Amino acid sequence: MTEKIAVLGAGSWGSMLAEILNENGHEVRLWAHNPAQVQEMNEKHTNQKYIKNFTFSKSLKAYSDLKEAIDGVDDILFIVPSQATRSVAKQVNQILDQLNIKPYIIHGSKGLETGTHERISQVLEAEINPKNRKTVSVISGPSQAEAVAKHDPTLVTAASEDLPSAIHFQKLFMNDYFRVYTNNDIIGVEIGGALKNIIALAAGALYGLGYGDNAKAALMTRGVAEISRLGVSFGANPLTFTGLSGMGDVIVTATSRDSRNWRAGYQLGKGKQLDDIVKDMGMVIEGVATSQAAYDLAQECGVEMPITEAIHSVLNKQETVQEAINKLMTREGRSEIG
Amino acid sequence: MTEKIAVLGAGSWGSMLAEILNENGHEVRLWAHNPAQVQEMNEKHTNQKYIKNFTFSKSLKAYSDLKEAIDGVDDILFIVPSQATRSVAKQVNQILDQLNIKPYIIHGSKGLETGTHERISQVLEAEINPKNRKTVSVISGPSQAEAVAKHDPTLVTAASEDLPSAIHFQKLFMNDYFRVYTNNDIIGVEIGGALKNIIALAAGALYGLGYGDNAKAALMTRGVAEISRLGVSFGANPLTFTGLSGMGDVIVTATSRDSRNWRAGYQLGKGKQLDDIVKDMGMVIEGVATSQAAYDLAQECGVEMPITEAIHSVLNKQETVQEAINKLMTREGRSEIG
Repeated sequence: MTEKIAVLGAGSWGSMLAEILNENGHEVRLWAHNPAQVQEMNEKHTNQKYIKNFTFSKSLKAYSDLKEAIDGVDDILFIVPSQATRSVAKQVNQILDQLNIKPYIIHGSKGLETGTHERISQVLEAEINPKNRKTVSVISGPSQAEAVAKHDPTLVTAASEDLPSAIHFQKLFMNDYFRVYTNNDIIGVEIGGALKNIIALAAGALYGLGYGDNAKAALMTRGVAEISRLGVSFGANPLTFTGLSGMGDVIVTATSRDSRNWRAGYQLGKGKQLDDIVKDMGMVIEGVATSQAAYDLAQECGVEMPITEAIHSVLNKQETVQEAINKLMTREGRSEIG
Repeated sequence: MTEKIAVLGAGSWGSMLAEILNENGHEVRLWAHNPAQVQEMNEKHTNQKYIKNFTFSKSLKAYSDLKEAIDGVDDILFIVPSQATRSVAKQVNQILDQLNIKPYIIHGSKGLETGTHERISQVLEAEINPKNRKTVSVISGPSQAEAVAKHDPTLVTAASEDLPSAIHFQKLFMNDYFRVYTNNDIIGVEIGGALKNIIALAAGALYGLGYGDNAKAALMTRGVAEISRLGVSFGANPLTFTGLSGMGDVIVTATSRDSRNWRAGYQLGKGKQLDDIVKDMGMVIEGVATSQAAYDLAQECGVEMPITEAIHSVLNKQETVQEAINKLMTREGRSEIG
């Protein structure tokens, strides 16, 4: 089965997923907002700002015109920054109104929309008219793009409320180094993928402050526990958080030096200011916006999320990173489960 | 509340737990099998073979006579190698027959007994007559001794079927850098603590073979999943494996270079033979015996444990480490949960 697939967004992960789909024999159109990036991809087959020293397949074509990218496709993969998803989805919906196609929709973004606190699949379902699409799915899991570029064996999850849709995407993405599991708990998979960036920020800060391996393991474990508490309050399956898009993604994001969110946290721990970190990084640090959304949700739902609260308090300059992390690590002992 | 506590076993973790209890104001007697180690501890207050460059409190006393160590204590902590627990427990029971005390029993060993496949608490309950003791508990979690020596904030779990006993030990161990949670699922906590060493061996081998961060996160995640499957088949709570003695301990053991089992796996991955690794290490590598016990249990119970099977096959020279790990990383994709 080969399909025509539009990949919207050419950051590290978007361009790498496009490459995988292209290597699997599909016809892939990679859309990027920035014309210079489209030109670099089509002429040099590189995307240096996002994936250093990697040459993409020559058959992978980039587009700056959204309609041209979408026309005639079977599937659309959204992989733009979480806060930009709604506006791109609106444009896609207008284009689909004019085209005679009804594609499957999937996304690979890891965040929540600030303000609405919606998951990205909710944004897509709201903005793209059901007459213009099939189901909405998500692909998520422990997947640093740099490691995929080296064909490091990578296991991810494709999730949809409609399991046959998840299996549809499993077949499109699966190859010998990129293994796709399926899950019908899209709420859990999306919440796990979004909130792990907060734990990565905290793990980086912990390391920057000089804490060791035990503290790191404890933080990550309690991090998955608080993500799970929030997810379950929205109806997610608690076992999803023990899986690839929960524990797995926390591990890779909070222990890999290639993780942007970990690096941002590390610099916070070293005393650098958030504004300077964001400016120097030059890429979106999803955990910053997500920590605000998660903090708001935790307050609304009455869910205890001490790590999220600590990061929120640091990012809003209510506490120094030292104060917040020390307080977190010396909380009262209690019962471990619930 | 200060108590008299015997700590049996002066390896890295036993001597460090004795130090914590001593710092917390208890009267601690550290028993060691080796007289030279007892002398070093009492004269130089060091334990160089197991914890380098650390000076223990002068008030912590070591004993080579088991009866002297036990006489009059409120609690006994067993922390000898898993395969030696039964013989030490038999000796302790004979001594308790002569003494007029009824101590609480706890252990901190991370393994299963080969042959019987029993958990360490089962061995202790079988060998120490109920008239000679109160309940049997376990203390477990992500706790490299080297990090505790530096007062790195460490979170562990005290577990007992009898929750008040777990709370009793929580109070004894808890201080500002060593935080103790409680759990009444002793089966889950012991199985998590024992089997994580198999995942550490596999993670080390993976790294030795040159795999990257995505593969590592995937292995650890699927590792917790298979440990959980086995534990649940014995009546453990699946949520225990998302906690400190499951995921937490897998993280610290499979990502810390201080972990003996990880280092042994790394050397396997680099092509070194098991016999040479064991000889050079000069300390017990718990994961080796545990992988045999876990493999046998998985066969008996019909539980799918592909990582345990891969390690078992390498240690028994049925496959090279390269063959076993490659096969593991290219299994069929499937549904993520059960």
